[in-house]
Amino acid sequence: MKTRAAVAFEAKKPLEIVEVDLEGPKAGEVLVEIKATGICHTDAYTLDGFDSEGIFPSILGHEGAGIVREVGPGVTSVKVGDHVIPLYTPECRQCKSCLSQKTNLCTAIRATQGKGLMPDGTSRFSYKGQPIFHYMGCSTFSNFTVLPEIAVAKIRDDAPFDKSCYIGCGVTTGVGAVVNTAKVTPGSNVVVFGLGGIGLNVIQGAKMVGADKIVGVDINDDKAEWGRRFGMTNFVNPKKIEGDIVQHLVALTDGGADYTFDCTGNTTVMRQALEACHRGWGVSVVIGVAEAGKEISTRPFQLVTGRVWKGSAFGGARGRTDVPKIVDWYMNGKIEIDPMITHVLKLEDINKGFELMHEGKSIRSVVVF
Amino acid sequence: MKTRAAVAFEAKKPLEIVEVDLEGPKAGEVLVEIKATGICHTDAYTLDGFDSEGIFPSILGHEGAGIVREVGPGVTSVKVGDHVIPLYTPECRQCKSCLSQKTNLCTAIRATQGKGLMPDGTSRFSYKGQPIFHYMGCSTFSNFTVLPEIAVAKIRDDAPFDKSCYIGCGVTTGVGAVVNTAKVTPGSNVVVFGLGGIGLNVIQGAKMVGADKIVGVDINDDKAEWGRRFGMTNFVNPKKIEGDIVQHLVALTDGGADYTFDCTGNTTVMRQALEACHRGWGVSVVIGVAEAGKEISTRPFQLVTGRVWKGSAFGGARGRTDVPKIVDWYMNGKIEIDPMITHVLKLEDINKGFELMHEGKSIRSVVVF
Repeated sequence: MKTRAAVAFEAKKPLEIVEVDLEGPKAGEVLVEIKATGICHTDAYTLDGFDSEGIFPSILGHEGAGIVREVGPGVTSVKVGDHVIPLYTPECRQCKSCLSQKTNLCTAIRATQGKGLMPDGTSRFSYKGQPIFHYMGCSTFSNFTVLPEIAVAKIRDDAPFDKSCYIGCGVTTGVGAVVNTAKVTPGSNVVVFGLGGIGLNVIQGAKMVGADKIVGVDINDDKAEWGRRFGMTNFVNPKKIEGDIVQHLVALTDGGADYTFDCTGNTTVMRQALEACHRGWGVSVVIGVAEAGKEISTRPFQLVTGRVWKGSAFGGARGRTDVPKIVDWYMNGKIEIDPMITHVLKLEDINKGFELMHEGKSIRSVVVF
Repeated sequence: MKTRAAVAFEAKKPLEIVEVDLEGPKAGEVLVEIKATGICHTDAYTLDGFDSEGIFPSILGHEGAGIVREVGPGVTSVKVGDHVIPLYTPECRQCKSCLSQKTNLCTAIRATQGKGLMPDGTSRFSYKGQPIFHYMGCSTFSNFTVLPEIAVAKIRDDAPFDKSCYIGCGVTTGVGAVVNTAKVTPGSNVVVFGLGGIGLNVIQGAKMVGADKIVGVDINDDKAEWGRRFGMTNFVNPKKIEGDIVQHLVALTDGGADYTFDCTGNTTVMRQALEACHRGWGVSVVIGVAEAGKEISTRPFQLVTGRVWKGSAFGGARGRTDVPKIVDWYMNGKIEIDPMITHVLKLEDINKGFELMHEGKSIRSVVVF
């Protein structure tokens, strides 16, 4: 079949909207009509050439929502007509990781996904006879895409695509880091570094589970209003305080935070986030993706005196199990998404979405097909 | 009263055995006759001048066992005749830390303890009219010492002092890191870096809780026999393998260890310990004390992909609650101590104990009074 898609023919160039060829689903695969897709910083990171493992030409996009239109042989967990969210972190429920019940990082199709290919080692996309690579196992910047059955989460039919698509990455990453990775408890003090989309979702996750103090930290004062909108109780601009940010936050949280979250990707901030934790039990979660080659450091004394350093990918969420629950939370009003969708674009205007992100003018831009 | 003690009059000098003056216990304090004390690396670290916060003249020693001989006003939790282990990490059960139920790092008397003083801000020891400072709130290198009530653990009367004293630091630090900090589960794969006294106690802790593979890592082949004696299943000498130690250990543990422990104090090894953990769930525990100013580093990707970095002090044990249990484990044969006590010395020979340690000839030297 043919489908309209935004193709990244090479790094550092705008996406091109073209008709590409798409093979139908093979065994264990499904064809999904993408109805909406968010534009995430990770797409930009790859497009801008920062990802040393980025592959071109490819169809980017990994934060989508859509409808199953065809299923390949042997597919049993979804059927034609089901509403689904593609999963860049699949959930096979069979591999060592899934069976450990201690991580969401399913390894069933990791090797091929990292190479931009389907599990059988080939691509379903092509353009003028040349293969186009898949991206993060999703390629949601295409009106139709093919996904392994284990890489789609079936969600309720009444969730609007142009909002639920954001649960495919940003919402789950932020809310899940609170719920699944840190397991923030009611009454806790929380500090969130970086009030972009992920930070705001950490804030609303912390609010949902009953945190007391939710401190937002950002060098841009304009973010304060956004933070408060989702439950932030205190705002700190590190550039506008006297003295050291860590000491400031320790004082503000009566000895240190119970939980801190880095949503910046800046390794200096990651250290501050750890050291702003309470002696004895504070847990710091790294969510942001650092520049290649950058390292985090601290004195081991910080750990020996009880602080814990951990990280979170896709919010620690098992895609097929947890993503439908987060859709429910949204539909039941336990979390909000609508105000975060600051821009809705057509596919032709997708490059505009990247511009808005680079200019810091959007929380989330969503492309609707 | 007078008591015989080994006094550290200044750094980098041998201890001197003298009669010092000891004031009796004030309110909330107890007088303890020390019957035996281990000599720990931390005593040597201070005596050798590496601890920038070391205070002299002082009476070192923090790994003792003895009998309560007198109690001050208001003491209710122990009585004359009780067998006790002094606690350098007290347990007041009233402070924010104790009440959190998330840490053993009681803060009730931290400020004065760090200054070598009792909680009222004075010392009980003096020599020729000049005060001698307490050390780690214990000063077990004295035949008699005074301790706050919250800094003694009452233990059973039938435990031999020359063995149970080791539970005052080394045994609890190692076994406790497994049981309390890492919470190692049955069937786990464990890697222990550094097979000194702490490392051996980590090994026997891992054995006690039912770990499968227990890998010991040391650059000294002579340690292998010691490790096996306490439950080590595999020995690796990093100097005698081909290639990278981390990759070697990951292969040996089928993808990485479930739990790793640094018992070296070397920050390079601490990083190896983290990175030898299994993707998705491996937990690395820093136990060793690093040189002043040294820092640990890693790529944040190690955390984002599910490894957890934490630390342990006094094995995460609440002194008055958990130390008596570990004494029971020893008395019931669940852990061993006797073979680790390689040397028993008289107080006059205490400097010999430090020499044995520096020469790597002892696992633990114990001074009996």
